[in-house]
Amino acid sequence: MKILILGMDGYIGWSLALRQLRLGNEVCGVDNFSRRKAVEEMGSWSAVPILPMQKRLEILKKEHGGKVSFHEGDLVDQKFTDDVIKTFKPDTIVHLAEQPSAPYSMIDQNHAVYTQSNNVVGTLNVLYSQKNHVPRAHLIKLGTMGEYGYGNDIDITEGFMEIEFRGKKTVIPYPRMAGSWYHWSKVHDSNNIMFACKLWNLTSTDIMQGIVYGTRIREMEDEPKMTRFDFDEVFGTVINRYCSQAVIGHPLTVYGQGGQTRGFLALEDSIQCITILINNPPDPGEYRVVNQFDEQYRVSELADRVKRIGDKKGLGVEIKRVENPRLEKEEHYYKADHEHLKKLGFKPTRHIDDEINIMLDDLAVFKERIQAKKDSIIKIVRWNDGLKQSMASPAVSYKT
Amino acid sequence: MKILILGMDGYIGWSLALRQLRLGNEVCGVDNFSRRKAVEEMGSWSAVPILPMQKRLEILKKEHGGKVSFHEGDLVDQKFTDDVIKTFKPDTIVHLAEQPSAPYSMIDQNHAVYTQSNNVVGTLNVLYSQKNHVPRAHLIKLGTMGEYGYGNDIDITEGFMEIEFRGKKTVIPYPRMAGSWYHWSKVHDSNNIMFACKLWNLTSTDIMQGIVYGTRIREMEDEPKMTRFDFDEVFGTVINRYCSQAVIGHPLTVYGQGGQTRGFLALEDSIQCITILINNPPDPGEYRVVNQFDEQYRVSELADRVKRIGDKKGLGVEIKRVENPRLEKEEHYYKADHEHLKKLGFKPTRHIDDEINIMLDDLAVFKERIQAKKDSIIKIVRWNDGLKQSMASPAVSYKT
Repeated sequence: MKILILGMDGYIGWSLALRQLRLGNEVCGVDNFSRRKAVEEMGSWSAVPILPMQKRLEILKKEHGGKVSFHEGDLVDQKFTDDVIKTFKPDTIVHLAEQPSAPYSMIDQNHAVYTQSNNVVGTLNVLYSQKNHVPRAHLIKLGTMGEYGYGNDIDITEGFMEIEFRGKKTVIPYPRMAGSWYHWSKVHDSNNIMFACKLWNLTSTDIMQGIVYGTRIREMEDEPKMTRFDFDEVFGTVINRYCSQAVIGHPLTVYGQGGQTRGFLALEDSIQCITILINNPPDPGEYRVVNQFDEQYRVSELADRVKRIGDKKGLGVEIKRVENPRLEKEEHYYKADHEHLKKLGFKPTRHIDDEINIMLDDLAVFKERIQAKKDSIIKIVRWNDGLKQSMASPAVSYKT
Repeated sequence: MKILILGMDGYIGWSLALRQLRLGNEVCGVDNFSRRKAVEEMGSWSAVPILPMQKRLEILKKEHGGKVSFHEGDLVDQKFTDDVIKTFKPDTIVHLAEQPSAPYSMIDQNHAVYTQSNNVVGTLNVLYSQKNHVPRAHLIKLGTMGEYGYGNDIDITEGFMEIEFRGKKTVIPYPRMAGSWYHWSKVHDSNNIMFACKLWNLTSTDIMQGIVYGTRIREMEDEPKMTRFDFDEVFGTVINRYCSQAVIGHPLTVYGQGGQTRGFLALEDSIQCITILINNPPDPGEYRVVNQFDEQYRVSELADRVKRIGDKKGLGVEIKRVENPRLEKEEHYYKADHEHLKKLGFKPTRHIDDEINIMLDDLAVFKERIQAKKDSIIKIVRWNDGLKQSMASPAVSYKT
């Protein structure tokens, strides 16, 4: 199968490329390296050192020969996107190539506009190229559980729900109540993709993914094959950040009460899920939504787990509650369906405690790299007034 | 009161400026003249000749002196938008300055991307400037009833609805199921505005407006004060197009079965509604949605009305069913609440038949102008494959 991975240089993109190549698929990757640039803009870097793409490709080509290719470019560049899709003619497009950070989108006006414009325009361009050149391909788009929001009083369904209103039954899209400009950009994308499927009979799976954690998947036995790992406040996600903090003796920073409940998933299982989706496309013309996570946890409970496991390793982990920079409920009802992937065969393979254990060991090796960019751990973006220090424009321009 | 009218050169913007000045308010207008350029791009012009803005302003200044001002510029230009709002410090911002045509957004990829990027970025810039300089101002944003879509099996509420799901009650945003890239751009805006109100405690009214028709409001006694009137397939709305077709002896072009039901509103009553909203802002920090229309009609019924009234004037009106270029149901359930404005005092003042009567007389004066651009009446954009003739980029660039 021919798989186009948009955002192949990223945390999930690189992991997915390794997996798909091992499975014998042909992989074409695309990236504009915006993640590397934006993390640098935040004064940080990946805890795990990653090679430049050219070197990464050399490693892959040694093993997989002509089955891997790569194009540097930006999806907001219509001609670039169109040329790649027209030439490669993928069976599956996995679209991971978006500005992926909520705090980054809340830094200031420039970052908000960049995030929405970049994500919406990039996805529109992919949809048009899919329609024009590979109308029977399967578009797998990475969204987030955050599209639904976390203040709902009712259960969260998978994309759609049946309701009765004024005596009549109907099916509606599950209401989206996102909590940042970034999360809303994903909602805008979801709406555009749903419309494109209806308009042009395209086929798509929209993944509402939980928060991914972990340093590795099984294909990463050698260090040069490892994927990036962000620990800064802006691009690091919560478990990854806690583990990095634990390793350098920094208190784990829990926002407010810590009752924020989210769905989580190990990197290994995220890659398993995406692989299942690649192998099980929906019916032609269907817009399918899946909720992709394993277990739900409160963030304070995650800090407790990292502390317990870290303390066993002699790390002497402290937990510190800090003022919550976000606009979110710190205690709330949360119950989200996640049956679609299970029905397709998803079986979680990683237990969170085992994974935290591995992460702490992996990160211990790169302790000095985390220490060197320690300031980026507390570079807090406040939802109501952005980042206090003055910021230039985003590292990557949204001009086309 | 100080009222900023974004899009003051447009059909509603110009009318609203005349009304607010007559009521003694101070008006500052903004426009980038994109509507004039885009209608020209479609090979058409306003049936009613309109003066350049400088001349329009001279007329207003003669009557209202320093109470009116104007700035030419584009809302996607962050500095421009910020300067205008910082300097004028409006009490109310009426935001009408968007790409307003569904068919225009469906022409091709460039026009789709332009529409979404222009509308979303312009509105984001307005929200940031409001927050930074006039956080207690009231933002009135023009959306459309089309955001809800027309294929719903259930009644349409005003923005939000209470539902019971799995035994629990909650209030959710009414699901949006738009039918063009343009309509989705308005949904994206609505979502962003709802979030901004929550995030920064801003105050906003989001108008889900029906389709507006009519050539004039009472302030337009002299021709130079009349507002633009589009009759081409892309920018002309349905009643306005039918009346223009009737005047030049062109058959009224009804799409498919003509059972498409929509809410409608005379221009005079649209201006009445916006004035009511200006004078009755919601509570500080509230995001209010109003459904702004008078009556619901099927489009075939509208064609019959125009024929009946036109025939009395000896126009010999024909009706022709044409293949529907849009992706929409031609027969469907439609029942939309519209109580909020009535509760605030809205009383429709125009009957549709009287208004059609006036329109046909007004347009008879400009018959030759319509005749001269007759080709633009059948410049049909098909939803599934755009405009057949090759198109350049949009008349107005979306680059910033």
